[in-house]
Amino acid sequence: MAVMQSAPDQGVLYLDDLHVGQAFTSAIHVVDGDQIKAFARQFDPQPFHLDEAAAARSHFGGLVASGWHTAAICLRLLVEDRHRRQAELRRRGEAVARTGPSPGLRNLQWPRPVRAGDTIAYAHEVVELRLLADRGDVGLRVARNTGTNQKGELVYSVLTSTFIERREKQG
Amino acid sequence: MAVMQSAPDQGVLYLDDLHVGQAFTSAIHVVDGDQIKAFARQFDPQPFHLDEAAAARSHFGGLVASGWHTAAICLRLLVEDRHRRQAELRRRGEAVARTGPSPGLRNLQWPRPVRAGDTIAYAHEVVELRLLADRGDVGLRVARNTGTNQKGELVYSVLTSTFIERREKQG
Repeated sequence: MAVMQSAPDQGVLYLDDLHVGQAFTSAIHVVDGDQIKAFARQFDPQPFHLDEAAAARSHFGGLVASGWHTAAICLRLLVEDRHRRQAELRRRGEAVARTGPSPGLRNLQWPRPVRAGDTIAYAHEVVELRLLADRGDVGLRVARNTGTNQKGELVYSVLTSTFIERREKQG
Repeated sequence: MAVMQSAPDQGVLYLDDLHVGQAFTSAIHVVDGDQIKAFARQFDPQPFHLDEAAAARSHFGGLVASGWHTAAICLRLLVEDRHRRQAELRRRGEAVARTGPSPGLRNLQWPRPVRAGDTIAYAHEVVELRLLADRGDVGLRVARNTGTNQKGELVYSVLTSTFIERREKQG
């Protein structure tokens, strides 16, 4: 496996406990102009992320978050949601599955910009579960991860593939 | 076009001035533990990004940057490089091409983690230039974007597709 670093995911259930169509929805995060400008100063110093007046003159027509800031906000919502879910499983005395390396992310898109005042929610839906002929200990979960704003409009979308433990080793 | 937000790119040259194999390399950035933990506290609060001792016990064996922090560092190097290049073109009185929306990013991977003390450089290589039968004003540039550490090892990789202006409108 060339890819060592795990991609973010919500892998707290064993592969056997998942089914295609299963969805998880996070808490929400309200984005403001100070957050947009602070991220941009550090990582993406372009006028339409840094300054309201310059942003108003750009093709965005106003201040917008860096796409990578939007991704980072969705990541935060995902990690918090996973921590909550793991804590709940542990509180009930249930085992928590481990997730392995991810072969990578596909189709990363920002269909609409995130603007100051927007409220972002993150969702994760299982789109495919694949058992592997040569490995009985894990399977592959393909999930569509999305960020939406308060109008339900898509602002972020990415497909992830993640190796997830099976409840009992097969074969 | 469903995708409104431009992906980051180095589109300061017109499509006609680019050729497949053309490469740009950025300045470097030195990552330290404080940067890794500050990003993680805000966006990716997992033990192996937050705390040296917990990270030493994880499968990473030490503190590692969030993959999205690595992406953001590469973004910063890219934006600064583009600004330098644009300033140079303008200083010479040359026109600067505009880039349009991106249909999205493909194959986002983090082959190796970034550790405290690593020095990251960003590079961008044109892998395909596509003229469009139905549009004479722009073409599509496909580029491979990579981050490497001080040993030349790949830590970040993504394929971008970006619409770029042609020097003179065709057809």
